[in-house]
Amino acid sequence: MTEEAKHKCGVFGVWGDPDSANLAYIGLYAQQHRGQESAGIAVTDGNLLRAHVGMGLVSEIFKKSVLDTLTDSNAAIGHNRYSTTGSSVPENAQPLLREYIGGQVALGHNGNLINSKILRDEYEQRGHIYRTTTDTEVIIHLLAAHHLSHTDPLVETLQHLQGAYSLVFLFKDRLEVVRDPWGFRPLVIGTTPGGFSCVASETVALDAIGATFLREVEPGEIVTISDKGMSSRRFAEVQQPAHCIFEHVYFANPSSQVFGETVQIVRESLGETLAKEAPVEVDCIIPMPDSGRSAALGYSRASGIPYREGIVPNRYVGRTFIKPTQSQRNTAVQLKLNVVRDIINGKRIVVVDDSIVRGTTTRAKMEQLRRAGAREIHLRISCPPIRHPCYFGIDFQDPKQLIATARTEKQIADFLGVDSLHYLTLDGMLSCVTHPNDSYCNACFSGNYRLNVEQPVNKLDLERHQLKMFP
Amino acid sequence: MTEEAKHKCGVFGVWGDPDSANLAYIGLYAQQHRGQESAGIAVTDGNLLRAHVGMGLVSEIFKKSVLDTLTDSNAAIGHNRYSTTGSSVPENAQPLLREYIGGQVALGHNGNLINSKILRDEYEQRGHIYRTTTDTEVIIHLLAAHHLSHTDPLVETLQHLQGAYSLVFLFKDRLEVVRDPWGFRPLVIGTTPGGFSCVASETVALDAIGATFLREVEPGEIVTISDKGMSSRRFAEVQQPAHCIFEHVYFANPSSQVFGETVQIVRESLGETLAKEAPVEVDCIIPMPDSGRSAALGYSRASGIPYREGIVPNRYVGRTFIKPTQSQRNTAVQLKLNVVRDIINGKRIVVVDDSIVRGTTTRAKMEQLRRAGAREIHLRISCPPIRHPCYFGIDFQDPKQLIATARTEKQIADFLGVDSLHYLTLDGMLSCVTHPNDSYCNACFSGNYRLNVEQPVNKLDLERHQLKMFP
Amino acid sequence: MTEEAKHKCGVFGVWGDPDSANLAYIGLYAQQHRGQESAGIAVTDGNLLRAHVGMGLVSEIFKKSVLDTLTDSNAAIGHNRYSTTGSSVPENAQPLLREYIGGQVALGHNGNLINSKILRDEYEQRGHIYRTTTDTEVIIHLLAAHHLSHTDPLVETLQHLQGAYSLVFLFKDRLEVVRDPWGFRPLVIGTTPGGFSCVASETVALDAIGATFLREVEPGEIVTISDKGMSSRRFAEVQQPAHCIFEHVYFANPSSQVFGETVQIVRESLGETLAKEAPVEVDCIIPMPDSGRSAALGYSRASGIPYREGIVPNRYVGRTFIKPTQSQRNTAVQLKLNVVRDIINGKRIVVVDDSIVRGTTTRAKMEQLRRAGAREIHLRISCPPIRHPCYFGIDFQDPKQLIATARTEKQIADFLGVDSLHYLTLDGMLSCVTHPNDSYCNACFSGNYRLNVEQPVNKLDLERHQLKMFP
Amino acid sequence: MTEEAKHKCGVFGVWGDPDSANLAYIGLYAQQHRGQESAGIAVTDGNLLRAHVGMGLVSEIFKKSVLDTLTDSNAAIGHNRYSTTGSSVPENAQPLLREYIGGQVALGHNGNLINSKILRDEYEQRGHIYRTTTDTEVIIHLLAAHHLSHTDPLVETLQHLQGAYSLVFLFKDRLEVVRDPWGFRPLVIGTTPGGFSCVASETVALDAIGATFLREVEPGEIVTISDKGMSSRRFAEVQQPAHCIFEHVYFANPSSQVFGETVQIVRESLGETLAKEAPVEVDCIIPMPDSGRSAALGYSRASGIPYREGIVPNRYVGRTFIKPTQSQRNTAVQLKLNVVRDIINGKRIVVVDDSIVRGTTTRAKMEQLRRAGAREIHLRISCPPIRHPCYFGIDFQDPKQLIATARTEKQIADFLGVDSLHYLTLDGMLSCVTHPNDSYCNACFSGNYRLNVEQPVNKLDLERHQLKMFP
Repeated sequence: MTEEAKHKCGVFGVWGDPDSANLAYIGLYAQQHRGQESAGIAVTDGNLLRAHVGMGLVSEIFKKSVLDTLTDSNAAIGHNRYSTTGSSVPENAQPLLREYIGGQVALGHNGNLINSKILRDEYEQRGHIYRTTTDTEVIIHLLAAHHLSHTDPLVETLQHLQGAYSLVFLFKDRLEVVRDPWGFRPLVIGTTPGGFSCVASETVALDAIGATFLREVEPGEIVTISDKGMSSRRFAEVQQPAHCIFEHVYFANPSSQVFGETVQIVRESLGETLAKEAPVEVDCIIPMPDSGRSAALGYSRASGIPYREGIVPNRYVGRTFIKPTQSQRNTAVQLKLNVVRDIINGKRIVVVDDSIVRGTTTRAKMEQLRRAGAREIHLRISCPPIRHPCYFGIDFQDPKQLIATARTEKQIADFLGVDSLHYLTLDGMLSCVTHPNDSYCNACFSGNYRLNVEQPVNKLDLERHQLKMFP
Repeated sequence: MTEEAKHKCGVFGVWGDPDSANLAYIGLYAQQHRGQESAGIAVTDGNLLRAHVGMGLVSEIFKKSVLDTLTDSNAAIGHNRYSTTGSSVPENAQPLLREYIGGQVALGHNGNLINSKILRDEYEQRGHIYRTTTDTEVIIHLLAAHHLSHTDPLVETLQHLQGAYSLVFLFKDRLEVVRDPWGFRPLVIGTTPGGFSCVASETVALDAIGATFLREVEPGEIVTISDKGMSSRRFAEVQQPAHCIFEHVYFANPSSQVFGETVQIVRESLGETLAKEAPVEVDCIIPMPDSGRSAALGYSRASGIPYREGIVPNRYVGRTFIKPTQSQRNTAVQLKLNVVRDIINGKRIVVVDDSIVRGTTTRAKMEQLRRAGAREIHLRISCPPIRHPCYFGIDFQDPKQLIATARTEKQIADFLGVDSLHYLTLDGMLSCVTHPNDSYCNACFSGNYRLNVEQPVNKLDLERHQLKMFP
Repeated sequence: MTEEAKHKCGVFGVWGDPDSANLAYIGLYAQQHRGQESAGIAVTDGNLLRAHVGMGLVSEIFKKSVLDTLTDSNAAIGHNRYSTTGSSVPENAQPLLREYIGGQVALGHNGNLINSKILRDEYEQRGHIYRTTTDTEVIIHLLAAHHLSHTDPLVETLQHLQGAYSLVFLFKDRLEVVRDPWGFRPLVIGTTPGGFSCVASETVALDAIGATFLREVEPGEIVTISDKGMSSRRFAEVQQPAHCIFEHVYFANPSSQVFGETVQIVRESLGETLAKEAPVEVDCIIPMPDSGRSAALGYSRASGIPYREGIVPNRYVGRTFIKPTQSQRNTAVQLKLNVVRDIINGKRIVVVDDSIVRGTTTRAKMEQLRRAGAREIHLRISCPPIRHPCYFGIDFQDPKQLIATARTEKQIADFLGVDSLHYLTLDGMLSCVTHPNDSYCNACFSGNYRLNVEQPVNKLDLERHQLKMFP
Repeated sequence: MTEEAKHKCGVFGVWGDPDSANLAYIGLYAQQHRGQESAGIAVTDGNLLRAHVGMGLVSEIFKKSVLDTLTDSNAAIGHNRYSTTGSSVPENAQPLLREYIGGQVALGHNGNLINSKILRDEYEQRGHIYRTTTDTEVIIHLLAAHHLSHTDPLVETLQHLQGAYSLVFLFKDRLEVVRDPWGFRPLVIGTTPGGFSCVASETVALDAIGATFLREVEPGEIVTISDKGMSSRRFAEVQQPAHCIFEHVYFANPSSQVFGETVQIVRESLGETLAKEAPVEVDCIIPMPDSGRSAALGYSRASGIPYREGIVPNRYVGRTFIKPTQSQRNTAVQLKLNVVRDIINGKRIVVVDDSIVRGTTTRAKMEQLRRAGAREIHLRISCPPIRHPCYFGIDFQDPKQLIATARTEKQIADFLGVDSLHYLTLDGMLSCVTHPNDSYCNACFSGNYRLNVEQPVNKLDLERHQLKMFP
């Protein structure tokens, strides 16, 4: 049940709207799929900043009495979190709220820095103290350290960061919204029904609050939103993008527009390509709910074989489900996914899923389908095998636990007990998205990292990264 | 968000299995869709009975520390509840646990009695006192009152009950499992992996605990399960059945076998019939998730028009979501269901849903689709209009609030703002199920009640109901 | 820490005051010392009755949101409970709220019936069912059973009850307030600041709500309070009273007037008598806080030896204190009572306490005083040894666990490790209260029970109890 | 009910004991009187540090499941808190846990720095960031900043602190225990039953865990406790002490030894002196429980007039008590303190209390005594009037709200409605303690501050403070 790749995080921000705290609250719900470990909102009334953060789901953290303490405000940022750097403890929950020579600041961060240890060590040497184990706190240390010595401390700070980062800073007089020079993670700007500016990781959050999509924040851009309106400056020249392809495959909400394309459409296309790459004569196409549905529809459309909902998810089984005794090990899987026997029994089926992580859950699902009478099971996965760690904001399992590490497709198929198995090829996957192939980071599949993850540096090596500072 | 018809309840029971309490716990999860208002488990160790009941979801009521207090037992019954008779207060949560001259008894009830007021009044006259406002407590009063005066007090008791009832009684030495003579609600028997007997409202609960389906409890049958095994007796002759057709349309889990048929298959068939009854030239078929999916697939299959997932549900919005300010009235709807603009924009669409209750939520959804650019919206509902109250265990809204009451389809379509609207016809609906038409209760659509709901009586009028007592 | 004799209960009632629910809430706080296991309030708005009961302290059960649901009412009853009959489970919490042919009724009970099993069995034979294991529910069964057959069902009901009972019934149109014919437990009437009538177990509750003491409810009297005012009738002739002397020794609040006398004054007098019975030459008199303070002051006054506070209680150690590891067994005692070494060290002391139950806690306290340097410890107890169970509302430990059972004072002194020990004599104790000796029940000390506890009967034997019915 | 002067805090520490976390837990209970706003425990297993802190009482914060997460440790520090610097928010709860170039550190602080703003500003200039608004966090910043540049960073750090501070630092390999050069607040060392070293604010915490008192931490001393044993160094020469006299008057637990004397004995002596300064012919001496008891006993002893417990406190009224409607304003006071009418009625009484803060609660109490029939009320306070703010760790109300500010004793007596009023004189008070008068800080009474509170400095002016560093 916990075998999923973990989302990094989601960020949200709004300035000027008298309903800011409520909008942030809705934004947290809309982006809950990006992080279920902790969540928080920070607000300002133009003078003081306050924050409430907690462990768990938004619905557990924000009761009415808590939300009411934040509504007397005209700006807010919100954050959903899954830990990548920094363990799962309350003090790591975001937005982080700190005070420094520039006043109070709250910060929400989606992504992961690859040079955070270097920076943290450097500032410890200078006598700085840390409250959290997150890379996010490091960013505030840099901001504070450069406040008096630089005319634009934020630009100076960002030039030290290597890795993936979509950031939303809340100050008492403005939002500062930042996207890393490679555009690893999405970040979009919109306009609230009240006419105010807002930002979010995904467009689904804009839709949820009734906002209109304006544009993406550009890689290497800082957008400032205040009572004076919105302005923009760059801290790095335009780079070759490194958009995370896994956002399309699995992470983002199907209804979101990510990197310029609707996720749902991309996923259907992945399924169509999968059908072309690995056709098989079967009676029906069965999606693994909910994640495999879009690709399964695409597979069905391309193959002409009927799509049927042969597995029904139980919506009530969550974190608090108490695992039964050892003698019923598979109960959680059976309870979570009910097989519709009449649809499966005696049939040759294709099962479409988006990914396999450790494989043990998938194997239990396949056994369940066999017990329900499936005659042949052909498993189709809508992305290539995941064989390499991600350093840019996705928390896959320990590589040693990934089923695809050091196993062939044949070995995996044997382990899972399926009649055939096909992973979508890298080329097949990349043929389903619009931008040129080299505009995406696909390192988790290929091992081809866009930044030198083995030798992170204190400050961006402009030559190596072809970065130039904005004048 | 709360415009749904409310399920009546779900019952579960198991005897002999040393893992009984855990099985009941899983059974509650599996049948959570049948009642989210309260839940409970009663157990016995062969000597004393204990129960834990609470308000809310199973996940809220049964923490590990609570479940651990029940596991020292070899039999258990469980109950999920939505109030029909009796308001929403803790003392009405089931199983009810009482003590009487026959010892302790716990009772879980799915259904609704139409003569409970008569019976309650009668026993109040005799000096009985009541703790709850449920019809279920009345049944225990009858059992106690007949204990000394009848050789089979349970049979005597049941002959006084008019209405829908699937009952599971737990005594210290046995389970007694009862289904009303008309078979209004489902009730099935299975065998646990450990080889013990169990019962549940739906087969999905058997699947969840890994049990094998044995058979239905017959209408008018009492099944006794104890350490001596299983035995059966009848308390009423076989009747013309009155199976609730709404179980197939909406209530039951799609993976369950209900009244001998798989729900999912029936629902696909409803969609196919709908396509035949009301074809229309459109670009795609859009299901209203999650309830409209099966019928939409059937509609797509019969019409040959592509099925697409154009609406994405947010799984995190639940009871605790705090409604935002009035200025964002539609936010809850928008947040709960995200429209995939690229799929909807510029398209002529059929939207398939299973039912419409008050209509205001549906209208908001239609507006959302329009804003996303839908060119034409044709709404197709996979059952006839609901125009009459149910007295047999479903809690529809006040008839005055049902949109179909005193409105034509045209008026409803205007209210909802759709280009066309079609409800499946009664005959169309009944053509999708196997048993003869008159084996189903369809009173909520037709007003044709199988029992005289206006003149309930103290005891079954055997002539009128063609009942004969078992010798 | 839990070695105390358990109070039976406290009752409270008020009629007509628009602030009734708040007054009941304060009354529960004022009488919390009479029962910390559960508490509850039932109210009526003149039409419906509602109740909220819970396990634990008043402060845990009644949050503002809960109390607010009750304040729309003009009458209320309250109850603090410690189990005597009926185990410690939520359904036994009072007031019990039931419905019967006479409408809704809520009941709070302080005391214990000795014939409840007989009555319970009788009504089980008649087909009645029980929700609780309390003797209190039996009373409602009798009331319901006699409703149609008697002109005054309450009087008929009471004539069946044997034992101790101070009762407050809430009906939608009145309070009925009852005290048993022997006056075992206190029950008083007062007038609220708003001029309405109220009742309580102790005068401390009247003081707490600012009410004026009016009079005691007479033994054998029913007081009816409604919008028409207060009226009285008798259900039994005046009897030889059997006031519980232990209310004065230990149970009641020191500031209360009980059976016509102020508890604090009686307790000082007990200490004075103790000094006369068992003088000893020491350096100071040390009270065991808080219960031994009054008697210690009396002892000091009579002996002329200085009174000093040598033991300081920790107010924060409560039920939720987590017992430390076995290696620190005495920690809870040490933490709860801090010895002031400078006062104890090198001194000969008299320690005055009100009672000893099991003795293990007392022994730990004596060891603590020794370690603090006490040269001689002379323990003085302000009542005789408790050697017999109470059937009238006090839950002493199992007699086998009472230290005084089958032990001489010398043996007890050796066990406790004190230099001398004296229990106040029965005559000494009785010389401190005003009424004649035979007006008090002292069975826990003497074994001399006022009712035949071994042969309880279905209905009062008027001859044996010299009762006559009121015409 | 909240009119009390607020304690600053309590600290606790233990090293080496395998039961450290449990001992800290008991220590928090024992020192709960020093701070009820928040509490926390930090532990180490010799490698990592972990902490759990929360708002509220120890009993609310530390459930068994929480405490169990800390017990796998061999050292612990604990902290009870009332805010003086820093508002009442969760992030200010202590021990603070931080990471810096020297590794992890946890810190608990009792006292208040007068130069924290200067220090905070200085380090903000250097680019440091802050998580809390407490002066305690500043100390960690200094420690981190001096880590690489000084051979003894802790000594260097302490030389910058001005004010009151008893500190307990937990590192992974040692405790560092510090008391400010003036000894404002108490701090003692003991030996646990297991033979390990421990420290606490008060000896009552040593008693509670069964530890033996060893000695006080000296003003200006650092005590290091590790697996190698205990060692000591000084960071400042011996100064003229400034022990807080209010610890004796009100704050400390009566059973504690503070500044070399038992608090209870001092308080009795305060009462004796009060009797000599302001004798009056009355019938009895009544303590205001619980704080006035010791002084009242002293007054009684010196005057020969009987001491009687005429006011009985209700132990159950706490923070969660819901204030009733406006029409019953005095209810909380009446409920909290019950007057024993028979002791008060018709009597001339002396009431002894330890202090008066705002006066409104005292006035309500006096009214209550009048209503109970007191003929004359003579109020005696066992310290001088509080007329000046404390900068060293006590949070009195806003001076404008202190009743003694700008009022004569006569005016205060009139306000309170008493027949006479006497505050103990400064000389009288100081005659009751052992050390020379100028060894105590009595600024809250006299306005005579021992440090220049109006011109705090960055670093100790050694000349002015006569400090010399230890070599």
